[in-house]
Amino acid sequence: MKKKCLILNNREPIAENHLDNLSQQLDIVWYQKTGTDFSLAEAVKTNPDTRIIITTYMDLTADYLQQLPQLEAIIATTISTHFIDSNYCRQHDIQIFNSENYTGASVAEHAVALMMSAMRKIPAIDSQIRQGNVDCFDYAGTELAGKTVGIIGFGNIGSYVAQLLSGFNMQLQYYNRSAKNSAIADAVSLETLLKTSDMVFLTTPLNHDSHYIINANALKQMKTSALLVNISPDDVMDRVAVQSALEKGEIGGVALDLLLVDGFLNTPNTVLTSRRAWFTSECFNRRINMWKTTLYNYLQGQQQTSLNKLDFVPLSKK
Amino acid sequence: MKKKCLILNNREPIAENHLDNLSQQLDIVWYQKTGTDFSLAEAVKTNPDTRIIITTYMDLTADYLQQLPQLEAIIATTISTHFIDSNYCRQHDIQIFNSENYTGASVAEHAVALMMSAMRKIPAIDSQIRQGNVDCFDYAGTELAGKTVGIIGFGNIGSYVAQLLSGFNMQLQYYNRSAKNSAIADAVSLETLLKTSDMVFLTTPLNHDSHYIINANALKQMKTSALLVNISPDDVMDRVAVQSALEKGEIGGVALDLLLVDGFLNTPNTVLTSRRAWFTSECFNRRINMWKTTLYNYLQGQQQTSLNKLDFVPLSKK
Repeated sequence: MKKKCLILNNREPIAENHLDNLSQQLDIVWYQKTGTDFSLAEAVKTNPDTRIIITTYMDLTADYLQQLPQLEAIIATTISTHFIDSNYCRQHDIQIFNSENYTGASVAEHAVALMMSAMRKIPAIDSQIRQGNVDCFDYAGTELAGKTVGIIGFGNIGSYVAQLLSGFNMQLQYYNRSAKNSAIADAVSLETLLKTSDMVFLTTPLNHDSHYIINANALKQMKTSALLVNISPDDVMDRVAVQSALEKGEIGGVALDLLLVDGFLNTPNTVLTSRRAWFTSECFNRRINMWKTTLYNYLQGQQQTSLNKLDFVPLSKK
Repeated sequence: MKKKCLILNNREPIAENHLDNLSQQLDIVWYQKTGTDFSLAEAVKTNPDTRIIITTYMDLTADYLQQLPQLEAIIATTISTHFIDSNYCRQHDIQIFNSENYTGASVAEHAVALMMSAMRKIPAIDSQIRQGNVDCFDYAGTELAGKTVGIIGFGNIGSYVAQLLSGFNMQLQYYNRSAKNSAIADAVSLETLLKTSDMVFLTTPLNHDSHYIINANALKQMKTSALLVNISPDDVMDRVAVQSALEKGEIGGVALDLLLVDGFLNTPNTVLTSRRAWFTSECFNRRINMWKTTLYNYLQGQQQTSLNKLDFVPLSKK
């Protein structure tokens, strides 16, 4: 009997021929909708016999999972899996796999692109020109050479941000909860990083330690000129506190790659993308190949590390 | 008798107290207006006894200069001086000075910021979000690692672009009319550079050799996916040919820091700034100090190299 494989995607659409070579083994259901057209409740209700889920960011809580009594495995197309109820999965012997390292250089490059766009105010100047204000001189930039960069989370992405900036004549420092080594950046305490950095990068996964690592208290420690760059999941920041800090001038600006952008549409000195750090054509293809490989390996019974011991941290709602 | 010093500025305004300490020696006239309010004819006509001009980009042709029979020296606040009629100045013993090296890291950083903004489509995504299209997936970016960068003009700015990109895992190559050495980038012919580069940077001064170095023929040699980045004076490119190449898809996109942006307001895959590469607070202050120093040195009779042997290449009009 074929196993039902439900593909849940409310993000960038994927061509639906990608699993055609598995159609002998799998009953494949593509559930791809965006915005309010997407209903996880509907997807689950209409596919109660699902054995395998492929999913992007969405809260797979016990409420939903218990409607799928035959569920064996959840493959996230993301690096993060914090939005999957790992407690429920452990109890019900459901394996959780992620898509590690598909990001290659793209996510770190996006973080640096956000930083440079913000420091040189390129979206604002481009927009002013298109509105006819060619001689608008309101948007003076900041020179990067000589400034100090602080990177919170020094895994693959954070350390590649440091590498990208290694030719910039900037001082590079990082904070990581476990010890890391670097030839080009200095390990510092979180407090030192916040107090001394001109640009603070958030490149940490979301877990109980990093949840709201940038909160009102952290923001108060930062320089009033500092730029905050976030390519981590939204909830490494207390977004309301960041909005308030921007409005009060307690920090200089932000460049954010968020799922929930609404609170930042009118804050000053703000550059926004909506979870696009990974969204290059190179990364898009690599990512599909990665979760397909995980699926093949799973179907063939190969041993793969399940992540159902990681923290469950649901996504923020609006 | 005080020498009249006329400050001509139709760009970013400067605080008019900067020469107060010279008011014993100089009769200082600040003529700062932007857009169509600025009239070089008016400035010249009302100050016929000018001895020293401080100027930003504007065509100081013989027509204007001959109305200033006492003129001794022109100090450009720019690196470029091509817009000053050097033939007339040689014949009339008028010295031309520029403001060398005030750009520091800022201009090269802006070139890289333009490139990254364009490759990751940050102005377009930011703009879509602000129009409510948060889930717009039209703007896939390009990963930089593994790509080839070509730099045309390998002086202070071009070689610093290479240094900035030295941590990016990209292949770096350059073309310069005179021989240059680099430990991190390969010297290639202009033809090879155009044919093999994924991103082409224009970082050359404007002279008779570099005028329209990017013309219809050069554009045809470039990859159809290539990005053209220009922080040089406008006329290193044939702008009409670049517009046509964009519209026909002969190149992939442009990121341009131009005086004359009008032709690019509706071209596809276009990021624009209006001569802002130098416009950081650091650079702004350094630049004023530099031309003030040149002026002090001139007044004290110190020997300084006059640039009145360089090419005269007037600026394009609309």
